[in-house]
Amino acid sequence: MPRPLFECVPNYSEGRRPEVIEAIVAPFRGRAGVHLLDHRADPDHNRLVVSLVGEPDALQESLLESARAAIAAIDLRAHTGAHPRIGAVDVVPFVPLMGAAMPDCVSLAREFGRRFNRETGVPVYFYEEAALRPERRRLEVVRKGQFEALRTGIERPERQPDVGQARLHPSAGATAIGARPFLIAFNINLGSRDLAIAREIARSIRESSGGMPCVKAVAVDLAARGLVQVSINITDMQKAPLYTVLERVREEARRRGIEVVETEIYGMVPAAALIDSAARSLQLAGFDPAQVLELRLLDLAGQEGS
Amino acid sequence: MPRPLFECVPNYSEGRRPEVIEAIVAPFRGRAGVHLLDHRADPDHNRLVVSLVGEPDALQESLLESARAAIAAIDLRAHTGAHPRIGAVDVVPFVPLMGAAMPDCVSLAREFGRRFNRETGVPVYFYEEAALRPERRRLEVVRKGQFEALRTGIERPERQPDVGQARLHPSAGATAIGARPFLIAFNINLGSRDLAIAREIARSIRESSGGMPCVKAVAVDLAARGLVQVSINITDMQKAPLYTVLERVREEARRRGIEVVETEIYGMVPAAALIDSAARSLQLAGFDPAQVLELRLLDLAGQEGS
Repeated sequence: MPRPLFECVPNYSEGRRPEVIEAIVAPFRGRAGVHLLDHRADPDHNRLVVSLVGEPDALQESLLESARAAIAAIDLRAHTGAHPRIGAVDVVPFVPLMGAAMPDCVSLAREFGRRFNRETGVPVYFYEEAALRPERRRLEVVRKGQFEALRTGIERPERQPDVGQARLHPSAGATAIGARPFLIAFNINLGSRDLAIAREIARSIRESSGGMPCVKAVAVDLAARGLVQVSINITDMQKAPLYTVLERVREEARRRGIEVVETEIYGMVPAAALIDSAARSLQLAGFDPAQVLELRLLDLAGQEGS
Repeated sequence: MPRPLFECVPNYSEGRRPEVIEAIVAPFRGRAGVHLLDHRADPDHNRLVVSLVGEPDALQESLLESARAAIAAIDLRAHTGAHPRIGAVDVVPFVPLMGAAMPDCVSLAREFGRRFNRETGVPVYFYEEAALRPERRRLEVVRKGQFEALRTGIERPERQPDVGQARLHPSAGATAIGARPFLIAFNINLGSRDLAIAREIARSIRESSGGMPCVKAVAVDLAARGLVQVSINITDMQKAPLYTVLERVREEARRRGIEVVETEIYGMVPAAALIDSAARSLQLAGFDPAQVLELRLLDLAGQEGS
């Protein structure tokens, strides 16, 4: 099977100065073992979101280099923007991909957190699956009151960092480093104009209303198309496979006399999610993702690069 | 979308001497733009089958280097083996993969054929999709009577090569170069011990008996498991998608009161075949394979390599 690969989506508190954005992103370009998939800067949020995929060592090296650029250029004391933040390097979530499991990802996040603190002096909080304190699984708990509140608040026992001393870096604040599953945006369009029905179905499937684990869902009116949509985020595709979620929505829709018209995946999706769906619908037994030509090639390409 | 990639499965008339086999395979190792997926030598057939994936230029360069090694070491005048052959480099089929279409593949086969003849002096026949004469679509027509019959037969109008003069290379014979779709081996196991039923179903779906286009099928007894199998080769997954073939077998089985128990894919399968099946069963609209994380990565890895 393939070598372990991870996605990483670091968020930086800079969305306005192009030369700073480029200095932060540059370490991810043309580097063996790391691929820059995307980066988006938002001036209103004054925030930069970078999407990377790579191997643990190359990811860590390039993230550290990028962090040094961010810390050198960003001063949180003078930072304004709509998005909550506690640091110049605000959050660094790692996501397990092909060949990687969540415990590997938690180890990677914790290892990176210790290195990051040692090399930058910025205190670190671990969140989501990497959290060391249960309440810190929720990022909003870690970021409560943002940089400004943490400047004195960090000394309080419940806000002490997981790595580093209990004081913010003067200009770069603190950083939240986490591990989480890949998130799939899956929309299901229903042959109805009745938004109330879509709301009922969204409520019946979402975890927070007692529905399916790892499923978030809201209803959306697609008035121009004469349809309603159940817009879904799947936070763990193993616990909530696409076909299981769809089957449940189909049942709920049928009970109300309507049909699923079509579905869409918004953004990226790991091959495993589609292979699982194909294997299920094709009744495939004993299928190994290494049989997929392109996954095999990706593995070979990686071996040559390393 | 990804850069065009091709599979190539060259067959060489050498399955016994390890040092010759290694000299033939060596040009495919550690080379940018070419991946050696597999190679199998069979002493009884006295034949080597190599499985490659790569980009057009790198594939051609490495194939020429490999061909020179084979031509230097193999003498068809002294060659014996169970498998039909006309040359030291016997057949070179190209297969379009991600980002490539059959016309690209035919162009690649023809370009390679001309280069191969120019650089080695070995006459070339084009077969399957690359054929210039309709009857040469069938490889068995090109190889009729093998090396021995072609030594004098090549001068006859109907056997003149497509590239090069009408005489065999003294020791290396001739080479058949072709283009064909990827072949998927798809087995469907039925909950029955009645081989006659599997034979009926195989007959009802295979193209040669008036069934589905691009489908070959035979019945196999899985006596130890108490099942029978319809063993299928799909020669064009766009004309005969996995789910369409399975649906047809399910219908034929149900009409006879039996069920499909499970299926299997034997060997490699292109991602597109599974994505198509997943998209169909998930009712996905407007899905782009570039949304699949690993395919995107493969594309990025290739861009860096080139």
